[in-house]
Amino acid sequence: MSQPITSTLDTEQQKVAGEALRATVIDLIDLSLIAKQAHWNVIGRNFRSVHLALDELVTAARDFTDAAAERATAVGVSPDGRAETVAKESGAVGFPDGWQQDTDVIDGVVRNLTAVIQRLRERIEATEKADPVTQDLFIGFAARLEQLHWMWQAQVATS
Amino acid sequence: MSQPITSTLDTEQQKVAGEALRATVIDLIDLSLIAKQAHWNVIGRNFRSVHLALDELVTAARDFTDAAAERATAVGVSPDGRAETVAKESGAVGFPDGWQQDTDVIDGVVRNLTAVIQRLRERIEATEKADPVTQDLFIGFAARLEQLHWMWQAQVATS
Amino acid sequence: MSQPITSTLDTEQQKVAGEALRATVIDLIDLSLIAKQAHWNVIGRNFRSVHLALDELVTAARDFTDAAAERATAVGVSPDGRAETVAKESGAVGFPDGWQQDTDVIDGVVRNLTAVIQRLRERIEATEKADPVTQDLFIGFAARLEQLHWMWQAQVATS
Amino acid sequence: MSQPITSTLDTEQQKVAGEALRATVIDLIDLSLIAKQAHWNVIGRNFRSVHLALDELVTAARDFTDAAAERATAVGVSPDGRAETVAKESGAVGFPDGWQQDTDVIDGVVRNLTAVIQRLRERIEATEKADPVTQDLFIGFAARLEQLHWMWQAQVATS
Amino acid sequence: MSQPITSTLDTEQQKVAGEALRATVIDLIDLSLIAKQAHWNVIGRNFRSVHLALDELVTAARDFTDAAAERATAVGVSPDGRAETVAKESGAVGFPDGWQQDTDVIDGVVRNLTAVIQRLRERIEATEKADPVTQDLFIGFAARLEQLHWMWQAQVATS
Amino acid sequence: MSQPITSTLDTEQQKVAGEALRATVIDLIDLSLIAKQAHWNVIGRNFRSVHLALDELVTAARDFTDAAAERATAVGVSPDGRAETVAKESGAVGFPDGWQQDTDVIDGVVRNLTAVIQRLRERIEATEKADPVTQDLFIGFAARLEQLHWMWQAQVATS
Amino acid sequence: MSQPITSTLDTEQQKVAGEALRATVIDLIDLSLIAKQAHWNVIGRNFRSVHLALDELVTAARDFTDAAAERATAVGVSPDGRAETVAKESGAVGFPDGWQQDTDVIDGVVRNLTAVIQRLRERIEATEKADPVTQDLFIGFAARLEQLHWMWQAQVATS
Amino acid sequence: MSQPITSTLDTEQQKVAGEALRATVIDLIDLSLIAKQAHWNVIGRNFRSVHLALDELVTAARDFTDAAAERATAVGVSPDGRAETVAKESGAVGFPDGWQQDTDVIDGVVRNLTAVIQRLRERIEATEKADPVTQDLFIGFAARLEQLHWMWQAQVATS
Amino acid sequence: MSQPITSTLDTEQQKVAGEALRATVIDLIDLSLIAKQAHWNVIGRNFRSVHLALDELVTAARDFTDAAAERATAVGVSPDGRAETVAKESGAVGFPDGWQQDTDVIDGVVRNLTAVIQRLRERIEATEKADPVTQDLFIGFAARLEQLHWMWQAQVATS
Amino acid sequence: MSQPITSTLDTEQQKVAGEALRATVIDLIDLSLIAKQAHWNVIGRNFRSVHLALDELVTAARDFTDAAAERATAVGVSPDGRAETVAKESGAVGFPDGWQQDTDVIDGVVRNLTAVIQRLRERIEATEKADPVTQDLFIGFAARLEQLHWMWQAQVATS
Amino acid sequence: MSQPITSTLDTEQQKVAGEALRATVIDLIDLSLIAKQAHWNVIGRNFRSVHLALDELVTAARDFTDAAAERATAVGVSPDGRAETVAKESGAVGFPDGWQQDTDVIDGVVRNLTAVIQRLRERIEATEKADPVTQDLFIGFAARLEQLHWMWQAQVATS
Amino acid sequence: MSQPITSTLDTEQQKVAGEALRATVIDLIDLSLIAKQAHWNVIGRNFRSVHLALDELVTAARDFTDAAAERATAVGVSPDGRAETVAKESGAVGFPDGWQQDTDVIDGVVRNLTAVIQRLRERIEATEKADPVTQDLFIGFAARLEQLHWMWQAQVATS
Repeated sequence: MSQPITSTLDTEQQKVAGEALRATVIDLIDLSLIAKQAHWNVIGRNFRSVHLALDELVTAARDFTDAAAERATAVGVSPDGRAETVAKESGAVGFPDGWQQDTDVIDGVVRNLTAVIQRLRERIEATEKADPVTQDLFIGFAARLEQLHWMWQAQVATS
Repeated sequence: MSQPITSTLDTEQQKVAGEALRATVIDLIDLSLIAKQAHWNVIGRNFRSVHLALDELVTAARDFTDAAAERATAVGVSPDGRAETVAKESGAVGFPDGWQQDTDVIDGVVRNLTAVIQRLRERIEATEKADPVTQDLFIGFAARLEQLHWMWQAQVATS
Repeated sequence: MSQPITSTLDTEQQKVAGEALRATVIDLIDLSLIAKQAHWNVIGRNFRSVHLALDELVTAARDFTDAAAERATAVGVSPDGRAETVAKESGAVGFPDGWQQDTDVIDGVVRNLTAVIQRLRERIEATEKADPVTQDLFIGFAARLEQLHWMWQAQVATS
Repeated sequence: MSQPITSTLDTEQQKVAGEALRATVIDLIDLSLIAKQAHWNVIGRNFRSVHLALDELVTAARDFTDAAAERATAVGVSPDGRAETVAKESGAVGFPDGWQQDTDVIDGVVRNLTAVIQRLRERIEATEKADPVTQDLFIGFAARLEQLHWMWQAQVATS
Repeated sequence: MSQPITSTLDTEQQKVAGEALRATVIDLIDLSLIAKQAHWNVIGRNFRSVHLALDELVTAARDFTDAAAERATAVGVSPDGRAETVAKESGAVGFPDGWQQDTDVIDGVVRNLTAVIQRLRERIEATEKADPVTQDLFIGFAARLEQLHWMWQAQVATS
Repeated sequence: MSQPITSTLDTEQQKVAGEALRATVIDLIDLSLIAKQAHWNVIGRNFRSVHLALDELVTAARDFTDAAAERATAVGVSPDGRAETVAKESGAVGFPDGWQQDTDVIDGVVRNLTAVIQRLRERIEATEKADPVTQDLFIGFAARLEQLHWMWQAQVATS
Repeated sequence: MSQPITSTLDTEQQKVAGEALRATVIDLIDLSLIAKQAHWNVIGRNFRSVHLALDELVTAARDFTDAAAERATAVGVSPDGRAETVAKESGAVGFPDGWQQDTDVIDGVVRNLTAVIQRLRERIEATEKADPVTQDLFIGFAARLEQLHWMWQAQVATS
Repeated sequence: MSQPITSTLDTEQQKVAGEALRATVIDLIDLSLIAKQAHWNVIGRNFRSVHLALDELVTAARDFTDAAAERATAVGVSPDGRAETVAKESGAVGFPDGWQQDTDVIDGVVRNLTAVIQRLRERIEATEKADPVTQDLFIGFAARLEQLHWMWQAQVATS
Repeated sequence: MSQPITSTLDTEQQKVAGEALRATVIDLIDLSLIAKQAHWNVIGRNFRSVHLALDELVTAARDFTDAAAERATAVGVSPDGRAETVAKESGAVGFPDGWQQDTDVIDGVVRNLTAVIQRLRERIEATEKADPVTQDLFIGFAARLEQLHWMWQAQVATS
Repeated sequence: MSQPITSTLDTEQQKVAGEALRATVIDLIDLSLIAKQAHWNVIGRNFRSVHLALDELVTAARDFTDAAAERATAVGVSPDGRAETVAKESGAVGFPDGWQQDTDVIDGVVRNLTAVIQRLRERIEATEKADPVTQDLFIGFAARLEQLHWMWQAQVATS
Repeated sequence: MSQPITSTLDTEQQKVAGEALRATVIDLIDLSLIAKQAHWNVIGRNFRSVHLALDELVTAARDFTDAAAERATAVGVSPDGRAETVAKESGAVGFPDGWQQDTDVIDGVVRNLTAVIQRLRERIEATEKADPVTQDLFIGFAARLEQLHWMWQAQVATS
Repeated sequence: MSQPITSTLDTEQQKVAGEALRATVIDLIDLSLIAKQAHWNVIGRNFRSVHLALDELVTAARDFTDAAAERATAVGVSPDGRAETVAKESGAVGFPDGWQQDTDVIDGVVRNLTAVIQRLRERIEATEKADPVTQDLFIGFAARLEQLHWMWQAQVATS
């Protein structure tokens, strides 16, 4: 691939940050598609709460996708967010086809969030030396996704 | 698949409308991912115009995806908008990986819009008898996508 | 009744469209009053979700009432939306007096929506030849009411 | 009727406030339906002014209906705002069917406002001891309805 | 004329839709200029109501002009909205020069609306087979213009 | 009076501009009080139009009062807008006590606007040499007040 | 004076409420003119704070003037807010001509507020029996004016 | 304590109103802290509804706190809303430490609201003679808090 | 033509200002129609920039048309903005039919702006003595149109 | 205490972050109560500036409290923000009862801000290894509180 | 320098207007930088008022800079607003380095405003014949800057 | 220079952070002036895109200038953003006088951004130990400036 966009990062830093960002773009697109899938297919007593909360997750996932992809371009790396790439490389755990009971939806969202956050945490460490700007972006994503993780988990928690 | 949501449509009508809607959801998700992919990877003299116009296409594709998916649920059919389904079943023509020259991006967008509109036109005919509410939704999608088709094609047209 | 407002419709078209619109005005006013009645009297664990969702139904019913009534005037037919007329002629199935458990409220809303949508579907067919403008209005009502029907039914659905 | 909602009012206070509120809910729903009926059916030189002013009256009547009904629930009394109840128990003086000349509409609105205000004034006195919170709500309704009464009467007044 | 913009319509469909759209653009521009002319030149007791209502008509006519012209481009047909074309080809009935009494203005607006709606109704039929997207646009125009026709006619109606 | 605020105007210029501004402040306060008086006391068939139009006049008069007074301070001259000063020195023609028929209100407003505009026109000439900034402010006032004068006069005009 | 507007108040009640409201209109107009006068003429170290706070007082005084005047009309009594009437009958203590030191402005505002509030308190008692709606309006005025009184007095207070 | 702010109330009236307001400030701050505590610590199936509803309670409690405290200052009495004062003097019934099940949270909120409303009702009586302005403020608080009490109780009510 | 609206201008001043305003109304309507024509028919690489910039020109032309026409009425002169009058009397240089290359559109816009500005400059001189209010309006038009002229010319300029 | 919410942090990290967050919640609630206390009780020449600036501090303290508490829940730790806990454990230096001179208020705010910032700085260091997400939150708090510290100190600074 | 942008002004007019505009751009950029410098460095009892008022001055200076620069381009003259040009050619009187007492800041602002206004006044005269559009722009700047001059001077004035 | 504002940083930390912030203020002011200079002087086919994009750069540069300067004051260091200081000490590479072709403007912007970002990157490292709050601010600046760098470079990039 040609390198039409230059960066203040050296080649190694660019590689570390670029790979972390490309992988994050893919995870987050998948998360947004899973959340929309759940948003449409949820049924059960808590339909309305779950349906609405899923759109908040979609909004977060979409905003972070765009931020990660445009950070990749800013360090001179082309992001790839096409359906086939997402289908092959996503680190999310997926979601079943068809109508889903609200309790199953909540479990599914918590498991997908856990997987995505875990990978994000690793990238926060990985990019600390390579690029503090990229790291700071990931910290911001983690802050919001961990807040959402609590809110989803709280629905199935018992004291 | 169970049928937890009922509809005033009979089984045949539901089948026709449901299939048309499920396929439309998939085309439109792919269109939105392609437009985002182009939004990030475009380079060249018209970068700014193309970059901004692509986000208008993303907005249209996302809004119509949601409308089509929620119309499917309204007629009792579960939509499937997961990455793997989109990767396998989309009727869009796709988009290459990596940085793309603005002229190539415009060509690619026109070709994808043409493909999606063509399929939508067929579904407008197919749903006329089965469900005028679904047909009216598709007519609205076509109105906007054909407007965008003109705006993109106008950039490469000569009188 | 005198005919102070003229129309491009002929007498027969005006009669078909006018009757369909007058009946729709009545159904929708009753639907809005029933939804408000439920909004105030619901009790139970899902009080908040149901209470809020009912106001969305009220908004839809009121907006459509106004649109149907002003379409009647536009084709030269006087609408009648007074309490006594609504009490006598409404096609909705009604709602009991006093405090109601949330599960009963959901059932009641689904049954009223089903009745109103069924009659609307018949009027979409009836007005196709008489007045495509009126038909298009009814298609728009059905689109939203069938979406709400799914959302209410989803709360009591099991996969 | 069971009493699922408790109140700081004693039984007698609750009875006085509750009855006043239930009757007010009915009067105000009827007022809102009458105002909408007039809004659609008015004709004549002042059509536009009267048509617009009627929607301001609808807004007031609907807002106050909701406030009165939710005050009833707050004191533990279930409100009844269904069409048949309104048709039977409303204290408003009603409105004729069909197209109406603007001058007749103004007279009709003034007479209905006069009737509703008169009953409201009696309830302000009746609830003074029973519940100052309910009384204060009625005072607020009277303030706005008497302002509207002046504005409607001013259109037919001569000095 | 060259055809720089392509369409999914075949040549005959494009011809039918294109002619209907080009003629509609011209009628609506003329309607907007007539409404502005009346907006400035009206005098009489109802000056304020008529002056304000005319700007609502201008807004509708301008919005629909733009929608019709951009629908023409979307089906590959160049619209012509220049003053000389409008002066020659408009189907509106025109408006006299100089100050005009409010009663005459209302009559003139009703007659122009009647003429434009009549032609629009014919085009709704004409485009049904050729292009349902264009037809749906015309149905939307008719819905609003017939509503405005009622509101203007109501000012001179007697029961 | 001391001169705590300095100006780039010389003493003569300051005197001319200052007197014109002080007199304008007084005329405009009186105009705003007259318009409010009419706003409250108007009765008759055009009550609503006149009542609303009077508040537009109040807004203009208040905004211009503030602009004129703060222009006076900007050239180092203290404005005086107290009730007794306005009562003594205003150039407006006044307004009768008590309820007023709408036709009389329109006549009264036209006469007061005529008087205030006439004096403003003289001050536009008087300040041309002394202070173009003050003159430009007066030109802006005249533009709006003459527009309002036309709108009020149009209500009693016949062609 | 004729009585074109009727009221549910009896003659004595109307007289008490009407006189209280007419006098309040006059006090509040004067208060608004005094506050504007001070707004323009204040000088000194606290110019900006005092200048801005005076416009908040103007807003309150103007809003309450309109509310009191329209309450007067609602009970069938014509308000009089003309400059000469205000100059003669106001209960405010007035304000000197010319530039004023900020400390003097604060003292002047406190004294005017004290006078207006004192008279308002008397009218709250006077209207209790005559018209609780008018009394409630006065209570609302007192709440805000006493809050402003504290804020102005706090600027000259020492602990 | 010195009395830097004066009031139109006499010493006894000031004492009654001042004590009622000081105690209300304390109750409402505690209510806002309890609602926030619950907002953070709630878990269970209705997490989202309860979490959101608690912030509406916080908003009400904070707005009323400020209104009560600034009413105290307006009658010349210094309010005390410091943590130690609230901890010692609050009339609310408190809330346990740690995560709480949603059903327990609802019970806790109802009990705290009941306690605060009961004390407010006593103060409405106590201030009737001393200061109708303060009483009117308390009536407004009670109206909203009793509405919230119904909404919370409705979640655990059965018909 | 009768003169139902009076003015403070004398007959000669009214004639000079009135003719300048009537001619300006015609030029600006034509400019707005030309800009819309170009907005729809432009093709080429800069389609998006030119398409968007043309709507800014339309907005300016429409706003100034209304201001000029209402200034004409304010000086007692009836404006004429009908299609046939515009077609006959406009001072703009016109625009060709059919699709237009973006470079040709820019040239066409610059030439039309130049023509309209040139005529406006002459009217600024012509109205200086006759009516400074009208002159000030024209100065405001010239300021914006000359700014737009620069922005359009800058697209074809080379240093 | 049970641990119903899980986290990607290990036990030690959770302990460090959780303790820092719980202590911060307490400090910030106390800071918001102190700022409100000062907001109500300040008197003196700079009353208005200080009164307004204190509400900006309240807003910051409340927003940060919520962010810190929801970060605690996100790492699985229950926050405690009840009045008694705040009274016992806050690290702010407190504020005296009763009316306070503006100069004393400024001193008190600066001292409380200094104490809270000092503790926050220590927690920024303490959480660097344990949880960069929590650390980033604290850095954001410090940025705003140190800005406010400068603004308050600037009021008593001399060069 | 080439002349890529043409103008309706002749060479002499262009020279006069162009020089006045270029010099104004420089003065106003300097004024905006001085105001920001003061905004950051002010200390003393009136810190908050002065700090806020300086940002209003910055806003005015920046808006006028842009308007003057774009007027220069509109008459075909290239503006120069680079730091080195401003440092060399500004007509403002400058501002010292380091923290500044509020009283000194006020004096400094008044002196800079006086210098800039004096030069603007000369340019209003200089451009009267050359270009009334440019003159009108300068009159608008003077109106606002002289208002701000009064507001700043009022803070140090004594009656 | 005296030190009227204190900080929690020690002398060395304050020196490091203070110098970095003072230099950043200067670079960013120069960047904003250069961007404005280019905004006014750009000509060529991409005028509109470049002209608009430059104002986005101005906005970023101005917002960051203010943030950096107020961070300097927050750590007790006086910032210096006067024209002469910027002219002498800026690290940007400058911009030529006179009209500039769009391609040259893009090159110039990219080179200036590169220079400013390079220096910012060094300061991110330099302040890591001295003050994480300042470092975090710089990271935020770099994130946005590097995004803009990509967007500008993309306009001249080829794949």
